[in-house]
Amino acid sequence: MKIENEATGCLSRRDLIIGAGKIAAGAAVVTAGGLTLSSEVMARTAHEYKYVKLDPERVGQIAYENWYKNFCSYAVASGLIEPLRKEVGGPYNHFPLEITRFAHGGVVGWGTMCGTLFGAGVASNLIAGMDGEEITNDVIAYYASTELPLYKPKNAKLDRTPELSRSNSPLCHVSVGKWMKRSGKQFFTAERKDRCARLAADVAMNTTMLLNAWHDGSYEPKHGSQAKTHNMTAQNNCTECHGSNVPTP
Amino acid sequence: MKIENEATGCLSRRDLIIGAGKIAAGAAVVTAGGLTLSSEVMARTAHEYKYVKLDPERVGQIAYENWYKNFCSYAVASGLIEPLRKEVGGPYNHFPLEITRFAHGGVVGWGTMCGTLFGAGVASNLIAGMDGEEITNDVIAYYASTELPLYKPKNAKLDRTPELSRSNSPLCHVSVGKWMKRSGKQFFTAERKDRCARLAADVAMNTTMLLNAWHDGSYEPKHGSQAKTHNMTAQNNCTECHGSNVPTP
Repeated sequence: MKIENEATGCLSRRDLIIGAGKIAAGAAVVTAGGLTLSSEVMARTAHEYKYVKLDPERVGQIAYENWYKNFCSYAVASGLIEPLRKEVGGPYNHFPLEITRFAHGGVVGWGTMCGTLFGAGVASNLIAGMDGEEITNDVIAYYASTELPLYKPKNAKLDRTPELSRSNSPLCHVSVGKWMKRSGKQFFTAERKDRCARLAADVAMNTTMLLNAWHDGSYEPKHGSQAKTHNMTAQNNCTECHGSNVPTP
Repeated sequence: MKIENEATGCLSRRDLIIGAGKIAAGAAVVTAGGLTLSSEVMARTAHEYKYVKLDPERVGQIAYENWYKNFCSYAVASGLIEPLRKEVGGPYNHFPLEITRFAHGGVVGWGTMCGTLFGAGVASNLIAGMDGEEITNDVIAYYASTELPLYKPKNAKLDRTPELSRSNSPLCHVSVGKWMKRSGKQFFTAERKDRCARLAADVAMNTTMLLNAWHDGSYEPKHGSQAKTHNMTAQNNCTECHGSNVPTP
Protein backbone atom coordinates (compact mmCIF):
# COMPACT_ATOMS: atom_id res chain seq x y z
CA MET A 1 0.00 0.00 0.00
CA LYS A 2 1.33 3.37 -0.97
CA ILE A 3 1.63 6.19 1.54
CA GLU A 4 -0.30 9.28 0.76
CA ASN A 5 0.89 12.05 3.01
CA GLU A 6 -1.16 14.69 4.77
CA ALA A 7 -1.50 17.19 1.96
CA THR A 8 -1.74 15.07 -1.15
CA GLY A 9 -0.63 11.75 -2.60
CA CYS A 10 3.15 11.46 -2.52
CA LEU A 11 5.46 10.48 -5.33
CA SER A 12 7.85 7.58 -5.14
CA ARG A 13 11.39 8.01 -6.33
CA ARG A 14 10.47 5.97 -9.37
CA ASP A 15 7.61 8.39 -10.13
CA LEU A 16 10.02 11.28 -9.82
CA ILE A 17 12.58 9.79 -12.14
CA ILE A 18 9.89 9.06 -14.72
CA GLY A 19 8.46 12.54 -14.24
CA ALA A 20 11.83 14.21 -14.50
CA GLY A 21 12.43 12.44 -17.78
CA LYS A 22 9.31 13.96 -19.26
CA ILE A 23 10.14 17.57 -18.53
CA ALA A 24 12.88 19.99 -19.40
CA ALA A 25 15.93 20.36 -17.17
CA GLY A 26 16.71 23.51 -15.21
CA ALA A 27 13.79 24.86 -13.25
CA ALA A 28 11.86 21.67 -13.91
CA VAL A 29 9.25 20.67 -11.38
CA VAL A 30 6.97 17.69 -11.01
CA THR A 31 3.45 18.47 -9.92
CA ALA A 32 1.07 16.01 -8.33
CA GLY A 33 -2.33 16.89 -6.95
CA GLY A 34 -1.42 20.51 -6.34
CA LEU A 35 1.91 19.79 -4.67
CA THR A 36 4.98 21.03 -6.46
CA LEU A 37 8.20 19.14 -5.90
CA SER A 38 11.64 20.11 -7.06
CA SER A 39 12.88 17.22 -9.19
CA GLU A 40 16.37 18.66 -9.00
CA VAL A 41 16.37 18.40 -5.20
CA MET A 42 14.82 14.95 -5.13
CA ALA A 43 17.08 13.53 -7.80
CA ARG A 44 20.20 14.57 -5.93
CA THR A 45 19.69 12.14 -3.09
CA ALA A 46 18.86 9.35 -5.48
CA HIS A 47 22.09 9.81 -7.36
CA GLU A 48 24.62 10.54 -4.67
CA TYR A 49 23.99 8.15 -1.82
CA LYS A 50 24.44 4.65 -3.18
CA TYR A 51 23.32 1.73 -1.09
CA VAL A 52 24.88 -1.68 -0.73
CA LYS A 53 23.08 -4.30 1.30
CA LEU A 54 24.18 -4.37 4.93
CA ASP A 55 24.21 -7.16 7.49
CA PRO A 56 21.45 -6.34 10.01
CA GLU A 57 23.45 -7.89 12.86
CA ARG A 58 26.40 -5.65 12.11
CA VAL A 59 24.16 -2.58 11.98
CA GLY A 60 22.45 -3.59 15.22
CA GLN A 61 25.71 -3.96 17.10
CA ILE A 62 26.95 -0.54 15.95
CA ALA A 63 23.62 1.03 16.96
CA TYR A 64 23.79 -0.60 20.39
CA GLU A 65 27.33 0.61 21.02
CA ASN A 66 26.71 4.09 19.62
CA TRP A 67 23.72 4.64 21.87
CA TYR A 68 26.28 5.08 24.65
CA LYS A 69 28.05 7.78 22.64
CA ASN A 70 25.18 10.00 21.50
CA PHE A 71 21.90 8.26 22.36
CA CYS A 72 19.05 6.83 20.35
CA SER A 73 18.67 8.86 17.19
CA TYR A 74 22.39 8.99 16.48
CA ALA A 75 22.60 5.29 17.31
CA VAL A 76 20.25 4.25 14.52
CA ALA A 77 21.48 6.74 11.93
CA SER A 78 25.13 5.85 12.60
CA GLY A 79 24.34 2.14 12.70
CA LEU A 80 23.48 2.39 9.02
CA ILE A 81 25.78 5.18 7.89
CA GLU A 82 29.03 4.10 9.56
CA PRO A 83 29.20 0.84 7.57
CA LEU A 84 28.17 2.72 4.42
CA ARG A 85 31.13 5.04 4.95
CA LYS A 86 33.33 1.95 4.85
CA GLU A 87 31.57 0.09 2.03
CA VAL A 88 30.62 3.03 -0.22
CA GLY A 89 32.37 6.12 1.14
CA GLY A 90 31.91 9.25 -0.95
CA PRO A 91 29.12 11.51 0.27
CA TYR A 92 28.46 9.38 3.36
CA ASN A 93 31.81 10.58 4.69
CA HIS A 94 30.59 14.16 4.56
CA PHE A 95 27.14 13.67 5.97
CA PRO A 96 27.12 15.35 9.42
CA LEU A 97 25.81 12.42 11.44
CA GLU A 98 26.01 14.39 14.67
CA ILE A 99 22.99 16.50 13.69
CA THR A 100 20.78 13.52 14.51
CA ARG A 101 21.76 13.57 18.19
CA PHE A 102 19.29 16.25 19.31
CA ALA A 103 16.32 13.90 18.80
CA HIS A 104 17.29 11.89 21.92
CA GLY A 105 14.57 11.41 24.49
CA GLY A 106 11.80 12.18 22.00
CA VAL A 107 13.62 15.37 20.86
CA VAL A 108 15.81 16.94 23.57
CA GLY A 109 13.83 15.11 26.22
CA TRP A 110 10.30 16.24 25.32
CA GLY A 111 9.16 12.62 25.02
CA THR A 112 7.66 12.95 21.53
CA MET A 113 8.71 10.73 18.58
CA CYS A 114 11.24 8.16 19.80
CA GLY A 115 14.66 9.30 18.65
CA THR A 116 15.38 5.90 17.09
CA LEU A 117 12.64 6.61 14.55
CA PHE A 118 14.13 9.97 13.62
CA GLY A 119 17.44 8.22 13.10
CA ALA A 120 15.72 5.60 10.95
CA GLY A 121 13.96 8.36 9.01
CA VAL A 122 17.13 10.33 8.34
CA ALA A 123 19.06 7.26 7.22
CA SER A 124 16.34 5.77 5.06
CA ASN A 125 15.49 9.06 3.37
CA LEU A 126 19.16 9.73 2.72
CA ILE A 127 19.57 6.29 1.18
CA ALA A 128 16.26 5.72 -0.59
CA GLY A 129 15.13 9.26 -1.40
CA MET A 130 11.36 9.64 -1.39
CA ASP A 131 10.89 5.90 -0.93
CA GLY A 132 12.41 6.48 2.51
CA GLU A 133 9.07 7.88 3.69
CA GLU A 134 7.31 4.58 3.14
CA ILE A 135 10.18 2.75 4.81
CA THR A 136 10.03 5.13 7.78
CA ASN A 137 6.29 4.61 8.03
CA ASP A 138 6.76 0.84 8.14
CA VAL A 139 9.53 1.08 10.74
CA ILE A 140 7.28 3.22 12.96
CA ALA A 141 4.47 0.65 12.63
CA TYR A 142 6.93 -2.13 13.56
CA TYR A 143 8.09 -0.15 16.60
CA ALA A 144 4.57 0.48 17.86
CA SER A 145 3.34 -3.07 17.37
CA THR A 146 6.28 -5.20 18.53
CA GLU A 147 7.35 -6.29 22.00
CA LEU A 148 10.82 -4.80 22.36
CA PRO A 149 13.76 -4.94 22.93
CA LEU A 150 14.76 -8.18 21.24
CA TYR A 151 18.39 -7.58 20.37
CA LYS A 152 21.06 -9.45 22.29
CA PRO A 153 24.30 -7.47 22.00
CA LYS A 154 27.83 -8.75 22.03
CA ASN A 155 29.71 -7.33 25.02
CA ALA A 156 26.53 -6.05 26.63
CA LYS A 157 27.02 -3.12 29.01
CA LEU A 158 24.62 -4.81 31.40
CA ASP A 159 24.41 -8.58 31.87
CA ARG A 160 20.64 -8.69 32.18
CA THR A 161 17.75 -9.55 29.88
CA PRO A 162 15.46 -6.52 29.78
CA GLU A 163 11.70 -6.85 30.14
CA LEU A 164 9.68 -6.73 26.93
CA SER A 165 6.93 -4.20 26.32
CA ARG A 166 4.77 -3.12 23.39
CA SER A 167 4.40 0.67 23.14
CA ASN A 168 1.35 0.85 20.84
CA SER A 169 2.72 4.34 20.11
CA PRO A 170 5.84 5.89 18.58
CA LEU A 171 6.13 8.37 21.47
CA CYS A 172 9.21 8.11 23.69
CA HIS A 173 7.17 9.04 26.77
CA VAL A 174 4.60 6.30 26.17
CA SER A 175 7.11 3.67 25.08
CA VAL A 176 9.56 4.28 27.90
CA GLY A 177 6.72 4.80 30.40
CA LYS A 178 5.17 1.42 29.63
CA TRP A 179 8.55 -0.25 29.90
CA MET A 180 9.22 1.50 33.24
CA LYS A 181 5.89 0.22 34.54
CA ARG A 182 6.60 -3.30 33.32
CA SER A 183 10.14 -3.40 34.69
CA GLY A 184 9.70 -1.35 37.83
CA LYS A 185 12.81 0.61 36.90
CA GLN A 186 13.14 4.38 36.93
CA PHE A 187 14.22 6.51 34.00
CA PHE A 188 17.69 7.47 35.17
CA THR A 189 18.94 3.89 35.62
CA ALA A 190 21.43 1.65 33.86
CA GLU A 191 18.60 -0.79 33.12
CA ARG A 192 16.56 1.81 31.22
CA LYS A 193 19.61 2.90 29.25
CA ASP A 194 20.35 -0.72 28.35
CA ARG A 195 16.75 -1.20 27.25
CA CYS A 196 16.90 1.86 24.98
CA ALA A 197 20.27 0.88 23.52
CA ARG A 198 18.96 -2.59 22.63
CA LEU A 199 15.79 -1.09 21.20
CA ALA A 200 17.93 1.20 19.02
CA ALA A 201 19.54 -1.94 17.64
CA ASP A 202 16.12 -3.44 16.90
CA VAL A 203 15.01 -0.34 15.01
CA ALA A 204 18.27 -0.12 13.08
CA MET A 205 18.01 -3.78 12.10
CA ASN A 206 14.40 -3.48 10.98
CA THR A 207 15.33 -0.44 8.87
CA THR A 208 18.24 -2.36 7.36
CA MET A 209 16.02 -5.29 6.41
CA LEU A 210 13.55 -2.98 4.65
CA LEU A 211 16.36 -1.14 2.86
CA ASN A 212 17.87 -4.45 1.75
CA ALA A 213 14.53 -5.47 0.27
CA TRP A 214 14.23 -2.03 -1.34
CA HIS A 215 17.66 -2.48 -2.87
CA ASP A 216 16.59 -5.84 -4.30
CA GLY A 217 13.36 -4.39 -5.69
CA SER A 218 11.26 -6.62 -3.45
CA TYR A 219 10.17 -4.00 -0.90
CA GLU A 220 6.42 -3.51 -0.69
CA PRO A 221 5.19 -0.84 1.76
CA LYS A 222 2.83 -2.41 4.29
CA HIS A 223 1.49 0.32 6.54
CA GLY A 224 -1.10 2.76 5.20
CA SER A 225 -1.40 6.50 5.60
CA GLN A 226 -2.09 7.64 9.14
CA ALA A 227 -3.47 10.99 7.98
CA LYS A 228 -5.86 9.44 5.47
CA THR A 229 -7.02 6.84 7.99
CA HIS A 230 -7.81 9.37 10.74
CA ASN A 231 -8.56 12.39 8.55
CA MET A 232 -5.80 14.17 10.42
CA THR A 233 -2.30 13.34 11.59
CA ALA A 234 -2.55 10.83 14.44
CA GLN A 235 -1.34 7.69 16.13
CA ASN A 236 -3.59 4.63 16.48
CA ASN A 237 -3.84 4.47 20.28
CA CYS A 238 -6.65 7.05 20.43
CA THR A 239 -8.25 5.89 23.68
CA GLU A 240 -5.02 6.24 25.63
CA CYS A 241 -5.66 10.00 25.62
CA HIS A 242 -9.32 10.20 24.54
CA GLY A 243 -11.74 8.02 26.42
CA SER A 244 -11.86 5.59 29.30
CA ASN A 245 -8.47 3.97 28.81
CA VAL A 246 -6.42 6.88 30.13
CA PRO A 247 -3.52 5.68 32.29
CA THR A 248 -2.91 7.08 35.74
CA PRO A 249 0.26 9.18 35.89
CA MET B 1 19.87 27.64 32.29
CA LYS B 2 21.81 24.81 30.80
CA ILE B 3 20.09 21.74 29.38
CA GLU B 4 21.02 18.48 30.88
CA ASN B 5 19.78 15.70 28.70
CA GLU B 6 18.16 12.44 29.73
CA ALA B 7 21.26 10.41 30.43
CA THR B 8 23.73 12.90 31.84
CA GLY B 9 24.73 16.55 31.72
CA CYS B 10 25.49 17.64 28.16
CA LEU B 11 28.48 19.56 26.91
CA SER B 12 28.23 22.83 25.05
CA ARG B 13 30.28 23.40 21.96
CA ARG B 14 32.47 25.69 24.00
CA ASP B 15 33.06 22.87 26.50
CA LEU B 16 33.98 20.56 23.66
CA ILE B 17 36.42 22.97 22.12
CA ILE B 18 38.07 23.54 25.48
CA GLY B 19 38.05 19.79 26.12
CA ALA B 20 39.47 18.98 22.71
CA GLY B 21 42.29 21.41 23.32
CA LYS B 22 43.32 19.50 26.41
CA ILE B 23 43.61 16.09 24.82
CA ALA B 24 45.63 14.52 22.06
CA ALA B 25 44.28 14.38 18.52
CA GLY B 26 43.33 11.15 16.80
CA ALA B 27 41.07 8.84 18.77
CA ALA B 28 40.56 11.58 21.34
CA VAL B 29 37.36 11.56 23.32
CA VAL B 30 35.83 13.92 25.85
CA THR B 31 34.13 12.26 28.78
CA ALA B 32 31.55 13.90 31.00
CA GLY B 33 29.58 12.15 33.70
CA GLY B 34 30.01 8.74 32.15
CA LEU B 35 29.06 9.79 28.62
CA THR B 36 31.74 9.52 26.01
CA LEU B 37 31.59 11.90 23.08
CA SER B 38 33.74 11.84 20.01
CA SER B 39 35.40 15.24 19.87
CA GLU B 40 36.35 14.53 16.27
CA VAL B 41 32.71 14.15 15.30
CA MET B 42 31.52 17.14 17.30
CA ALA B 43 34.29 19.41 16.14
CA ARG B 44 33.51 18.78 12.49
CA THR B 45 30.17 20.55 12.59
CA ALA B 46 31.63 23.43 14.52
CA HIS B 47 34.31 24.00 11.94
CA GLU B 48 32.58 23.40 8.65
CA TYR B 49 29.20 25.08 8.84
CA LYS B 50 29.87 28.78 9.35
CA TYR B 51 26.99 31.01 10.30
CA VAL B 52 26.32 34.57 9.27
CA LYS B 53 23.41 36.40 10.82
CA LEU B 54 20.24 36.13 8.76
CA ASP B 55 17.24 38.40 8.45
CA PRO B 56 14.34 36.62 10.21
CA GLU B 57 11.80 38.08 7.76
CA ARG B 58 13.73 36.66 4.82
CA VAL B 59 13.94 33.26 6.49
CA GLY B 60 10.23 33.35 7.35
CA GLN B 61 9.19 34.09 3.79
CA ILE B 62 11.31 31.24 2.39
CA ALA B 63 9.86 28.86 4.99
CA TYR B 64 6.32 29.92 4.13
CA GLU B 65 6.86 29.39 0.41
CA ASN B 66 8.77 26.14 0.82
CA TRP B 67 6.01 24.62 2.93
CA TYR B 68 4.11 24.29 -0.35
CA LYS B 69 7.01 22.39 -1.89
CA ASN B 70 7.86 19.82 0.78
CA PHE B 71 5.85 20.68 3.93
CA CYS B 72 6.74 21.78 7.41
CA SER B 73 10.07 20.23 8.34
CA TYR B 74 11.69 21.00 5.01
CA ALA B 75 10.17 24.49 5.16
CA VAL B 76 12.01 25.44 8.36
CA ALA B 77 15.29 23.71 7.52
CA SER B 78 15.38 25.23 4.04
CA GLY B 79 14.29 28.62 5.35
CA LEU B 80 17.61 28.78 7.16
CA ILE B 81 19.85 26.77 4.87
CA GLU B 82 18.86 28.24 1.50
CA PRO B 83 20.08 31.73 2.43
CA LEU B 84 23.21 30.20 3.99
CA ARG B 85 23.92 28.51 0.67
CA LYS B 86 23.93 31.97 -0.89
CA GLU B 87 25.75 33.84 1.88
CA VAL B 88 28.26 31.17 2.95
CA GLY B 89 28.06 28.35 0.40
CA GLY B 90 30.58 25.55 0.93
CA PRO B 91 29.21 22.59 2.87
CA TYR B 92 25.68 24.02 2.96
CA ASN B 93 25.50 23.34 -0.79
CA HIS B 94 26.08 19.66 -0.18
CA PHE B 95 23.79 19.17 2.78
CA PRO B 96 20.88 17.00 1.54
CA LEU B 97 18.02 19.21 2.68
CA GLU B 98 15.42 16.85 1.25
CA ILE B 99 16.05 14.33 4.04
CA THR B 100 14.10 16.60 6.37
CA ARG B 101 10.88 16.17 4.40
CA PHE B 102 9.78 12.89 6.00
CA ALA B 103 9.01 14.62 9.30
CA HIS B 104 5.89 16.26 7.83
CA GLY B 105 2.68 15.74 9.75
CA GLY B 106 4.51 14.81 12.95
CA VAL B 107 6.70 12.30 11.05
CA VAL B 108 5.02 10.82 7.96
CA GLY B 109 1.63 11.74 9.37
CA TRP B 110 1.86 10.06 12.78
CA GLY B 111 1.08 13.35 14.52
CA THR B 112 4.08 13.28 16.87
CA MET B 113 6.68 16.10 17.06
CA CYS B 114 5.61 18.91 14.75
CA GLY B 115 7.79 18.74 11.66
CA THR B 116 8.72 22.42 11.97
CA LEU B 117 10.58 21.59 15.18
CA PHE B 118 12.47 18.78 13.55
CA GLY B 119 13.49 21.19 10.79
CA ALA B 120 14.55 23.72 13.42
CA GLY B 121 16.54 21.02 15.21
CA VAL B 122 18.37 19.89 12.10
CA ALA B 123 19.25 23.44 11.07
CA SER B 124 20.30 24.66 14.50
CA ASN B 125 22.38 21.58 15.27
CA LEU B 126 24.05 21.81 11.87
CA ILE B 127 24.88 25.47 12.48
CA ALA B 128 25.60 25.60 16.19
CA GLY B 129 26.84 22.07 16.94
CA MET B 130 25.97 20.89 20.41
CA ASP B 131 24.62 24.34 21.34
CA GLY B 132 21.88 23.54 18.84
CA GLU B 133 20.23 21.30 21.44
CA GLU B 134 19.62 24.20 23.78
CA ILE B 135 18.36 26.31 20.89
CA THR B 136 16.02 23.50 19.80
CA ASN B 137 14.74 23.17 23.35
CA ASP B 138 13.96 26.90 23.49
CA VAL B 139 12.25 26.83 20.08
CA ILE B 140 10.04 23.94 21.23
CA ALA B 141 9.12 25.87 24.38
CA TYR B 142 8.26 28.93 22.26
CA TYR B 143 6.09 26.78 19.97
CA ALA B 144 4.16 25.22 22.84
CA SER B 145 3.57 28.48 24.72
CA THR B 146 2.75 30.96 21.94
CA GLU B 147 -0.50 31.68 20.13
CA LEU B 148 0.34 30.93 16.50
CA PRO B 149 0.51 31.58 13.59
CA LEU B 150 1.66 35.20 13.64
CA TYR B 151 3.53 35.53 10.35
CA LYS B 152 1.97 37.59 7.58
CA PRO B 153 3.48 36.41 4.29
CA LYS B 154 4.05 38.39 1.13
CA ASN B 155 2.01 36.92 -1.72
CA ALA B 156 -0.04 34.76 0.63
CA LYS B 157 -1.55 31.67 -0.98
CA LEU B 158 -4.77 32.41 0.87
CA ASP B 159 -6.05 35.92 1.55
CA ARG B 160 -7.30 35.18 5.05
CA THR B 161 -6.05 35.77 8.58
CA PRO B 162 -5.87 32.37 10.28
CA GLU B 163 -7.22 31.85 13.78
CA LEU B 164 -4.66 31.82 16.59
CA SER B 165 -4.23 28.89 18.96
CA ARG B 166 -1.78 27.85 21.65
CA SER B 167 -0.83 24.18 21.46
CA ASN B 168 0.62 23.71 24.96
CA SER B 169 2.39 20.76 23.33
CA PRO B 170 4.93 20.17 20.56
CA LEU B 171 2.80 17.38 19.07
CA CYS B 172 1.40 17.93 15.58
CA HIS B 173 -1.82 16.10 16.48
CA VAL B 174 -2.45 18.31 19.51
CA SER B 175 -1.35 21.55 17.87
CA VAL B 176 -3.29 21.02 14.66
CA GLY B 177 -6.23 19.52 16.54
CA LYS B 178 -6.61 22.57 18.77
CA TRP B 179 -6.38 24.85 15.76
CA MET B 180 -9.00 22.79 13.90
CA LYS B 181 -11.33 23.10 16.88
CA ARG B 182 -10.75 26.85 17.14
CA SER B 183 -11.19 27.48 13.41
CA GLY B 184 -13.84 24.91 12.60
CA LYS B 185 -11.76 23.81 9.61
CA GLN B 186 -10.93 20.24 8.68
CA PHE B 187 -7.44 18.88 8.17
CA PHE B 188 -7.48 18.50 4.40
CA THR B 189 -8.34 22.15 3.66
CA ALA B 190 -6.53 25.11 2.16
CA GLU B 191 -7.04 26.98 5.44
CA ARG B 192 -5.21 24.35 7.50
CA LYS B 193 -2.36 24.25 5.00
CA ASP B 194 -2.09 28.05 5.13
CA ARG B 195 -2.03 27.92 8.93
CA CYS B 196 0.79 25.36 8.94
CA ALA B 197 2.80 27.26 6.31
CA ARG B 198 2.59 30.47 8.37
CA LEU B 199 3.46 28.57 11.54
CA ALA B 200 6.54 27.16 9.76
CA ALA B 201 7.58 30.76 9.13
CA ASP B 202 7.12 31.60 12.82
CA VAL B 203 9.28 28.67 13.91
CA ALA B 204 11.96 29.46 11.34
CA MET B 205 12.04 33.10 12.46
CA ASN B 206 12.27 32.21 16.13
CA THR B 207 15.13 29.82 15.37
CA THR B 208 16.88 32.54 13.37
CA MET B 209 16.62 35.04 16.21
CA LEU B 210 18.14 32.57 18.66
CA LEU B 211 20.92 31.69 16.22
CA ASN B 212 21.66 35.37 15.63
CA ALA B 213 22.00 35.89 19.37
CA TRP B 214 24.18 32.76 19.58
CA HIS B 215 26.38 34.17 16.82
CA ASP B 216 26.74 37.42 18.78
CA GLY B 217 27.57 35.55 21.98
CA SER B 218 24.46 36.89 23.71
CA TYR B 219 22.33 33.72 23.59
CA GLU B 220 21.31 32.43 27.00
CA PRO B 221 19.25 29.21 27.04
CA LYS B 222 15.94 29.80 28.81
CA HIS B 223 14.07 26.52 29.00
CA GLY B 224 15.19 23.85 31.43
CA SER B 225 15.54 20.11 30.99
CA GLN B 226 12.25 18.30 30.45
CA ALA B 227 13.70 14.97 31.55
CA LYS B 228 15.17 16.36 34.77
CA THR B 229 11.95 18.23 35.57
CA HIS B 230 9.68 15.18 35.14
CA ASN B 231 12.21 12.46 36.00
CA MET B 232 11.50 11.02 32.57
CA THR B 233 11.09 12.38 29.05
CA ALA B 234 7.79 14.29 28.90
CA GLN B 235 5.84 17.31 27.76
CA ASN B 236 4.31 19.74 30.29
CA ASN B 237 0.62 19.23 29.46
CA CYS B 238 0.32 16.13 31.67
CA THR B 239 -3.39 16.39 32.44
CA GLU B 240 -4.36 16.42 28.77
CA CYS B 241 -3.71 12.66 28.77
CA HIS B 242 -3.54 11.88 32.49
CA GLY B 243 -6.39 13.15 34.59
CA SER B 244 -9.63 15.03 34.29
CA ASN B 245 -8.70 17.39 31.48
CA VAL B 246 -8.82 14.81 28.70
CA PRO B 247 -10.39 16.23 25.55
CA THR B 248 -13.21 14.48 23.75
CA PRO B 249 -12.15 13.06 20.40
